[in-house]
Amino acid sequence: MRTEFENYLASQTDLPGETIRHISSMATVRRLHKNEVLMNAGEICRHKVFISDGLLRTYHIKPDGNEHILHFSPQHTWTLDVESYDNLTPSLVNIEAVERSTVLLWAKPDFDKLLKDIPELKKFSERLISRTVYNNRNRILTILSGTPEERYADFVNAHPDYLTRLPLRMIAAYLGISLKTLTRIRHAQLQRGARSMVK
Amino acid sequence: MRTEFENYLASQTDLPGETIRHISSMATVRRLHKNEVLMNAGEICRHKVFISDGLLRTYHIKPDGNEHILHFSPQHTWTLDVESYDNLTPSLVNIEAVERSTVLLWAKPDFDKLLKDIPELKKFSERLISRTVYNNRNRILTILSGTPEERYADFVNAHPDYLTRLPLRMIAAYLGISLKTLTRIRHAQLQRGARSMVK
Repeated sequence: MRTEFENYLASQTDLPGETIRHISSMATVRRLHKNEVLMNAGEICRHKVFISDGLLRTYHIKPDGNEHILHFSPQHTWTLDVESYDNLTPSLVNIEAVERSTVLLWAKPDFDKLLKDIPELKKFSERLISRTVYNNRNRILTILSGTPEERYADFVNAHPDYLTRLPLRMIAAYLGISLKTLTRIRHAQLQRGARSMVK
Repeated sequence: MRTEFENYLASQTDLPGETIRHISSMATVRRLHKNEVLMNAGEICRHKVFISDGLLRTYHIKPDGNEHILHFSPQHTWTLDVESYDNLTPSLVNIEAVERSTVLLWAKPDFDKLLKDIPELKKFSERLISRTVYNNRNRILTILSGTPEERYADFVNAHPDYLTRLPLRMIAAYLGISLKTLTRIRHAQLQRGARSMVK
């Protein structure tokens, strides 16, 4: 699992192998079962998390019990609640494994030290933050402007593999539409598919 | 207008007055009329923008002509299209003055040099980026999870002054609801207000 991370970092940066192994050696490996919680809302996010393998989701539960998914974190991405991590405040979100996953965890003081000691890691980290800003910006635009049909089509295009990996209710909770609406959209698509086969 | 910026930076950082005046001196002052465009979609965002005075909006126009507002930028905040600015790619968004405004503009190479030369400015800039990440995250949660009524109530709470400064259609374009829905929500509130006065 460390090798997985080391190969990833070698492909993304010009860091020498020795430095990469040092960064990797500071992490703890943790295996998560399907649906296992990595962090609950109310806790303080004390780790940077790299997903070696599997799929995590970050979600929020409203007082009325409704769940809303902020994002999914597939293999070879990072996740954390950045506001809680930066300011050591209780998190508003939960982070959980959608399927069996393996993650690498760095405690904040350790990762802060790595960032201080390794300027190229700091630059790489800044690039990741920028990408988060772009992604969130685009997600806001999609949610604001897309019809439920467009949002679903975008989602299928962007992540075709998620359709078989995620229960429908999670896709609905990510798209911000009801399960009923999502079922109706998929049903209409299937019917269109069947009609075009008959022709 | 430079003084406005200098006071702002002095209140937000421990930078010495001389450094603050140097940063300020690198900027160009630009006055914008109401509805004047600062940047059009398709252009490359080449400046960091500080709003000394006034109110700007960043919006996207869909191919069907519908407008969606990503955010408003009031006095003493910064704005830019970060993806276009970082990567020198054409912007997807427009930035425009909602009312008469004054902005300070730094060309990217100048601001990059300032960030390199002044570590405390770099740290301050990182704090601003983090705040953008938090704000966008919270905006995604609100759009995903709030009913139109809740989104409007949140908006009024967060920015009571915007109600008199913005046309209704812009508030609707920010909340991601139709003008008709927004009008219905406001009408229902007024009626409730009138009923409670009669009691």
